[in-house]
Order: sequence, then C-alpha cells, then structure tokens
Amino acid sequence: MGLAINCDMGEAFGLYRMGDDAGIMPYISIANVACGFHASDPLVMHKTVKLAKAHNVKVGAHPSLPDLQGFGRREMKMNRDELAASIIYQVGALKGFLDAEGMKLNHIKPHGALYGMAARNEETAHAICDAADAFKVTLLGMAGTLHEKIYKARGHSFLAEYYVDLDYDQTGKLIITREHHAVDPQQAVARTLRAIKEGKVRSIEGPDIPMRADCICVHSDTPGAVELAKAVHDALKPMLN
Amino acid sequence: MGLAINCDMGEAFGLYRMGDDAGIMPYISIANVACGFHASDPLVMHKTVKLAKAHNVKVGAHPSLPDLQGFGRREMKMNRDELAASIIYQVGALKGFLDAEGMKLNHIKPHGALYGMAARNEETAHAICDAADAFKVTLLGMAGTLHEKIYKARGHSFLAEYYVDLDYDQTGKLIITREHHAVDPQQAVARTLRAIKEGKVRSIEGPDIPMRADCICVHSDTPGAVELAKAVHDALKPMLN
Amino acid sequence: MGLAINCDMGEAFGLYRMGDDAGIMPYISIANVACGFHASDPLVMHKTVKLAKAHNVKVGAHPSLPDLQGFGRREMKMNRDELAASIIYQVGALKGFLDAEGMKLNHIKPHGALYGMAARNEETAHAICDAADAFKVTLLGMAGTLHEKIYKARGHSFLAEYYVDLDYDQTGKLIITREHHAVDPQQAVARTLRAIKEGKVRSIEGPDIPMRADCICVHSDTPGAVELAKAVHDALKPMLN
Amino acid sequence: MGLAINCDMGEAFGLYRMGDDAGIMPYISIANVACGFHASDPLVMHKTVKLAKAHNVKVGAHPSLPDLQGFGRREMKMNRDELAASIIYQVGALKGFLDAEGMKLNHIKPHGALYGMAARNEETAHAICDAADAFKVTLLGMAGTLHEKIYKARGHSFLAEYYVDLDYDQTGKLIITREHHAVDPQQAVARTLRAIKEGKVRSIEGPDIPMRADCICVHSDTPGAVELAKAVHDALKPMLN
Repeated sequence: MGLAINCDMGEAFGLYRMGDDAGIMPYISIANVACGFHASDPLVMHKTVKLAKAHNVKVGAHPSLPDLQGFGRREMKMNRDELAASIIYQVGALKGFLDAEGMKLNHIKPHGALYGMAARNEETAHAICDAADAFKVTLLGMAGTLHEKIYKARGHSFLAEYYVDLDYDQTGKLIITREHHAVDPQQAVARTLRAIKEGKVRSIEGPDIPMRADCICVHSDTPGAVELAKAVHDALKPMLN
Repeated sequence: MGLAINCDMGEAFGLYRMGDDAGIMPYISIANVACGFHASDPLVMHKTVKLAKAHNVKVGAHPSLPDLQGFGRREMKMNRDELAASIIYQVGALKGFLDAEGMKLNHIKPHGALYGMAARNEETAHAICDAADAFKVTLLGMAGTLHEKIYKARGHSFLAEYYVDLDYDQTGKLIITREHHAVDPQQAVARTLRAIKEGKVRSIEGPDIPMRADCICVHSDTPGAVELAKAVHDALKPMLN
Repeated sequence: MGLAINCDMGEAFGLYRMGDDAGIMPYISIANVACGFHASDPLVMHKTVKLAKAHNVKVGAHPSLPDLQGFGRREMKMNRDELAASIIYQVGALKGFLDAEGMKLNHIKPHGALYGMAARNEETAHAICDAADAFKVTLLGMAGTLHEKIYKARGHSFLAEYYVDLDYDQTGKLIITREHHAVDPQQAVARTLRAIKEGKVRSIEGPDIPMRADCICVHSDTPGAVELAKAVHDALKPMLN
Repeated sequence: MGLAINCDMGEAFGLYRMGDDAGIMPYISIANVACGFHASDPLVMHKTVKLAKAHNVKVGAHPSLPDLQGFGRREMKMNRDELAASIIYQVGALKGFLDAEGMKLNHIKPHGALYGMAARNEETAHAICDAADAFKVTLLGMAGTLHEKIYKARGHSFLAEYYVDLDYDQTGKLIITREHHAVDPQQAVARTLRAIKEGKVRSIEGPDIPMRADCICVHSDTPGAVELAKAVHDALKPMLN
C-alpha cells in the first residue's frame, strides 16, 4: 500500500454544516466518515459515501464516544465491552451505506477523545481492537503510541498518520487547539515531504523529532483547508496509491 | 422456507429491562432485534445477537423511527430519503454485531409506528424498500396491506405475520393495546393452527376473516409470554423450518 | 405594550453555528431562545441569555418537538399530556438561565412544526396552553389561526406576528421555504410599515390580504439578516416599546 | 430544619420502569427527582412531582451528567462552564413542573458520577455551586468530602446524607455496588439510629467510623425498598421535620 491522504468527512448534522467536504474530496484518497456519535446523521453519511464514491475515494469509519454535544472531544469512562459494542455499532452503520453503494470498508480511525484515550489507555486500545476484529481492516493512529503497540500485537495492520496542519512538541505529541489555525500551504508541503523522505519534522521547541508518515491527514475545518489539501495532493500525487 | 416463529428482542436499554429474552429465545426460530432507535443500545444488541446464536435463532433487524422516548410508537413525518437512510443506518449497525459473531442478516421487520405507516403510506413503504435494497433480505409484514403490495412490486420477498397474542377486527386490522393482555396458551395455539391450516381466524366481531400465516409472531411483553411461546413452539415444532 | 421586533436566537449546538446572534441582537427587542429540543444546548442557552441581557432584550422561550436532527421541522404525533410536559420542561430549563441572570420570562413562541401544528390542530394548541398555564406569559403566533382562538379562549394574552422576510399567499398562509431567500431591506421596511399602519400586505398572488402586526419577526438565517434587522429596527424605532 | 428522609425518584423513562415510586413516596419527606439526563422524561417528571405533592413530600432536583444510556454513572470530562450550564438546565426544567404545581424547589442533589466527581474534584464541585447560585437552595452530599468544603465556602447550606442501605469502609467511603443488595430492615433501623444519636457506624472492616446524618437516604431499587423505607420512616417519625 502506497501513501494515502485522509480527511475527516461527513461531520455535518441535520441543518448544521461543518467543513467543505465537496471542496476537499477531489484531493484525498481515503475519507474517514463520521458515524453519528460525534457528528453526522444517516442522511449525511449516505451523501458523504456517495460523494466519496464519485471521487474514487476509499471510505473508512470514524467512530467516536457517544457525545454529539461535545463533538466527541470529552473523555468518558466506558467499560471495555460497552465501548467495543459502541464502535461495532458505528462501523456497522457506516458499512450499511457502503453496502448500499457496493463499496468495501477500507479502515477505521477513532475520533477525538477516543483517539487520544487509545494512545494512553490500554483498555481503550483493546476495546478498539475488539471492535476491529469484527471487520478485519487497517487501523489509523499515531506512530510510537500505546495504541500502535496494542493494535499490532493484536494482529491489526496499522498506518501511522502525519498531520499536515498541526504542530508537534519535542516529545512527539500533537498540539491540539480548539480551532485549527491557517497554515501556509507551501511550508506545509515542504514539512510533509521531509517527514515522508527523511522521517523527521521540526518540533515547536526547535529540535527535529522522528516522524513516520504512512498516511497524511488534512482537516476540513482548518482555514484554507481546500487550498492546503490541493497543495499537498499535487505534491504527493506520484506517491499516492 | 417453512414456518417461522418470530419475536421482538433486545428491547432493554442501559439499566432498563424489557421482556424476558432469555426465557423466550428457546422457543422462537427468528429474532427481530431492536437497533437503538426505539429501544436497545450497542451492548444490549451484542448480547442479544450472542443469545440468539447460542439458540440457533436467526437474526433480523427491527428498525424504527428515531424515537427512544416514545418507543417508536409515535408517528413522525420524515422525507423518504432521510427515512431510508435511517433504516440503512440501523440495519447496518445490527449487521456489525452479526459480522462479529459470524452470522448472516436474515430479514428486516419495521417496528411500531414505522410498521403501521408502511401499511398505509406509499412513501414510507418505498423508503423501507430503498433501505432493504442494500441488504437483499426478506421483509416481514401484514398480508393484504399496502406494504405487501409495494415490497413485492419492488422485488423483495415477503413473509406475512400472524400475531398469536393480539385480536383482529372484521377488516383484518390488528387491535393494538398499549399494554398487551394475557391470552390462554391453548386457545392461542388452536387459533394459530387454524390460521395456518384453514387460513382463517375469528374476528372480534365474530365472523371469520381470511388470515395468512407464513410467520408466527409472539410478544415478549405479553403477560405469560414465555409459556405462550413454549406452547406455540411445541405445537408448531413439526412445521418449523 | 407597544410594537416588538423578535428573532429566533440561540440555535447553535455544540461546535455547530447557526445565525449571527451577536450581529442581530442590537436590533431586536425580544428574543425567542431555543431550548435544546430543536437546537441549542445548555451552554449556548446561557450565553444567549447573557447576550440578550447585555442588549436589554427581553427573553422568551422557543420550545419545539423533540427533534434535534430535524431542527424541529418534522411533525410528530404526541399525546397532549406528553407534549405539554415537553414544553414545560423546555420553558423551565430556559427560566433556569433567566433565574441565573435575574431576568423574567417574557413570552413563549412555539417553534417550527409545533407552531404549524398549533395553527391547525386543537389538541396541539391546548397542549401549548396547558404548558403556558404554568408560566402565565404572552404567547406569540399568527393572527386568525386556530391557535389564536384557543390561546385567547384559555385566557392567554396573544401577540400576532408579521414575518418581514417571508411571503404570504392569498389565504394568509406563510410561504415557508427550506432556506430563506434574501429580501430587499427597503422593500421589506415599506411592507412592514404598511402592515402596521394599514393592516394589509400584498399576497404572492397579487391581491392585498389583511395583516395584523403586533410583533415583527426577522430570521437570523435569512441572507443579509443583520442589515435587514437594522433597517426594520431603524424604521420602527419610534414605535418600539 | 429537622431530619429528612430522601429518595431518588422519577427514574422511569418512556415505557421503561425503575423503582416503586408510588410505594415509597408515603415514607419519605424529600424526593430527589431525576431531570432527564440520566433517567426520566418530561411526562415522568410531571407525574413524579404530582405524586410528591399528593404526599406532602418536598421536591429537589437530581441533576446528572448527560448520559441516559449509562444512567449517569460514567464519568465525563466537561468544562466547568458547560457543566454548570447543564445543571442549571436540568434544575430549571424541574422547576417548570414545580411552577405548574405551585411548589418550591427544596434542594439539589447531584446524581451518580457527578456526585462522586464533586467529592474529589474541585472544578466539579465549583460547577455545582455555580449552578446552585441561580437557585439558592440547600445541597445534599457526603460529610467530610471536598464538595462539603467547597459548597460551604461558597455559602451554600449543606445536608450530610447517611445511606441506610449501603456499607461504608474504614475511610468513610461508600461501597457502591452495581445492584443494591437487600438489607434487613431492623438492622438498618438500628444502624441509622446509632448514626443519628451517636454519630457512628460500623465499617465493613469492623471498627466504628464517625458518621453525620442530617438526612437519611433510601434507594428505590434496593430489594425490599418499600419495607425498608417504611421501617426507617416509622422509627424516625418523631424526628422528621
């Protein structure tokens, strides 16, 4: 499998809009589609899957803690069995729309607080594996975290993500801001190419840190997201699978 | 396909209980599992699917209007496309648990107000077909209704249900009560056998009405439900597929 | 009580935005604040109440059917007692924030499908009165409808709304579009002044129809809403109470 | 204020039942009514308030984290301002039904995980006070915890609860079990009287621990709850206010 550009998609809800999915879809190769627990609703999910199909974009599930009001960014304590069941529910729901469109599920990428908890908390990472066992697809995450270790030990294939529009600190941790800031597309492209070719990025403190980039992530709610996605896409085109 | 006994299952929610699923499961051949929109939650769904598997009971989806507070019994006006998407979502979610347990989806039976609306309203019946197109399974419903006509015209296979624990009026309409009343198991068995063999039941007004019974439905919240299910099961055993 | 300009406010939800509340608040005299059933959440409600307070805008409740995904625009069949209880719940919740800010509840204006159902359906109008009995405040609605008749017969004070940014047909019915269209502010002002002074507006078919305008409604999601609100406010300033 | 017997009430939801409210109401003096976030719905709330009124039982609010599926027993990370707003929303909603019945709000008792988090987490206890500031009523909790300290420092009056049907360990911590176990009514009464008169109970390890009991709590879902409540009520009758 070559390089992939992924983006979180389908995060509208009812009349509420979020991100320019139609603008970004042409520039990505895999879409992480929200499953109704942090964002999206059945009609949005179906439309997003159809939009991905129209652009030959592969579709994965982007399951979350059950927290529509908090956009899945509030940590919750759930037992391993109820968390695994919640993820199976969401991934299955998305697969319903893929069935309707004759598509296959490509991957699973946990969303928000669930993603962060899986990077630190063994039970959470295991619950994600318990759910993923039902679907046998690749998991996306951050290299060097607890979730990478557990996913691989459980036999799941894993793609390490590099975030084009976020900064990292010296320990390799992502700097998450409530609202994403605009980034210069050309600088972002240069950083991304360096991550891919040299396996390094500069941390916010200055020193370089090691960085694996099996998969490039862009956010649809970063200001200038479409231009950024296009610039990254154009630069990486020869490497995309 | 021979005769089947079906029951709505998995209608607990969180700490809340509903019906004696474990008591009834031994006496049915197909289970209609709630999908979280009128009842159930992911953990309840997974446990219900496992329970069905342990009893060699086939599993179908029991999707609803989105109405947990009203148990799916309140009519709502939804556009055909959003209703179809809501049903795909629910059936897909249930299929996730079937994937986890290596089982196949057996059928779809709409729940509550959705079932009733499909019997009278063309758009609703079409939305159910739109969703069912993604899964290519049998639909359950009442013989002689608008939904039978539309399901079949759209190429879906259809099983007509006979309700063991409810009465019918002279027009063939079910008498739905808020709470199900206890019925005498031996009388119910006799009525059921007559429906199957003679294609007739006595209406509440007195005269016989025609009745098709491809599939026998028992309710888990009828008083004495387990005994009733056992009596029906024992009497029909030779005919079950 | 003189003339009032009202606007539906506080319709954001979590990270989702809706309308420019801060832009419009300076130009209205009473705000209809969403109560969490079609839009809004507790934090949005509190911020909206504080914003209204800062602009000396009076606050009323804008309760809805329980339908966040459908923005309260899908009709649902609810019993009179459960509908009344749902409205009491929402109005009470809003009063909590008014208590926190030392403000009084000014009025109740039903939202979306609930508003429309109350204009045609006796049970719905009575359920609204049942709820309003607990709070003893003015109800907003359309002149000449069933709800006006029932609200008044039940002893509630009533303000008839005139919609600045919508058209009416010859029978006096509002032309509701999924998305509100831009309107010319000066034409809208002229129409509004005519409604107030002459009690007439031109229908979409051409002929004038009678129009009462105790209260002028602007929508925050009409394109150019802030300019329109400002124009109406500036023209009506001397008449506002 | 004399002694009070309190019980969590109104925890049914839609068709789902929980606890025998009608059986217990005659034996308590104050009811903690669920507000729809961990249990209850508007109609259940209204009926519960009416039932309390019929028995001259005072009503307080029993707000929760927003977690209907987890019955409010799953910890969630919420910002102080959004948590405070969530509590104001719930207490206000309950006050709506008290307004309808001409009753006053008597107290606030946080539910489940919110109660536990307030005993350990400063931000949570402050969020509860932020909300309680709007209503100026007594808060219920456990003596000697962080929440007692913060509630009192913020000027709220506080009643220390003693749980009739639960055990305490040597550090004074409640032993919370998923399902409450049956307790012997006469032993429970004896323990309760000792807590009230001597300020002591025996811990599960054996040694006595100090115990304040301004307010006696019984649970409606303990097996034999009605008999237990009656026994406690009969023994404490002369001391109740």
